[in-house]
Amino acid sequence: MARSIKHFLKKGFNFQVTGSLWIECEGERFLGPGKVELLERIADTGSINKAAKQMGMSYKKAWGMVKILNKQTAKPFVIVQTGGEKGGGSTLTEEAWQLIKYHRLLRERFTGFLKKETNRLRT
Amino acid sequence: MARSIKHFLKKGFNFQVTGSLWIECEGERFLGPGKVELLERIADTGSINKAAKQMGMSYKKAWGMVKILNKQTAKPFVIVQTGGEKGGGSTLTEEAWQLIKYHRLLRERFTGFLKKETNRLRT
Repeated sequence: MARSIKHFLKKGFNFQVTGSLWIECEGERFLGPGKVELLERIADTGSINKAAKQMGMSYKKAWGMVKILNKQTAKPFVIVQTGGEKGGGSTLTEEAWQLIKYHRLLRERFTGFLKKETNRLRT
Repeated sequence: MARSIKHFLKKGFNFQVTGSLWIECEGERFLGPGKVELLERIADTGSINKAAKQMGMSYKKAWGMVKILNKQTAKPFVIVQTGGEKGGGSTLTEEAWQLIKYHRLLRERFTGFLKKETNRLRT
C-alpha cells in the first residue's frame, strides 16, 4: 500500500473522494439514480406524464426511458395503460420494486466505498 | 441482502455496473484521470504546452489545472520554469509522483468494487 498522501495536501482544506455509479446494458444506460427517481414518481402518480413533469423532463424523454427499460428486462417493469389521458394509469411490477430495492442497496455500498476512501485520504 | 435481480433482466444481454470517480477539494475538482494524465504528460515532455497539445487541450486550460492543483497542495506539485518557451521546463515533485501512485491504487480499488458489483448482478 502507498503511504498516506494526507501530508501533501493543503491543511484545513476539505478533501473528499466522490463519484457516480450506474448500470449499463450492452453499453447503453440501463439504470441510474435518475431512472429510479422516474420509476418511483410513476408509482406515486400513476402517470408517466405527471412523473416527467415533476422532474422537469419532457413526456417524450420519460416515455423513451420507460420503453428502453422495458426492452432490457425479461418482462416489462412498467405497465402502461393505453387510452384515457396521455400516459395515465401506469404501474410498476413487483420486479420493478425489487430492482429499486437492489439499486438502493447498491448505492449504499457505493457510499460506503466512497466514505472508506475519503477516510483513507484523511488519515 | 436483496434477492438477485438477474432473473428479471433480459437473458443474453450484457449488464455491467460502471461509474466514475474523482477527488474534490472544498467542493471543487482536485484530481481525476484527466489531471493525472496531464501530470504524466508534463513529466514525459517537460512542458505544460506540449502535454496540453497531446491531450487536445488549450495551454490556458492546462495551465489553469496546474495552477489550481498547486494551490490545493501543501507545496506545489508542478515546478514551472519561467523564461524560454511558453510552459517549457516543467517538472513534477516527488509528492506529485506519490499522488499519481495513490491515484492508481485508488482506481484499482474502484475497478475491484465495480467488478464485484457486476458479478453480483450476474449471479
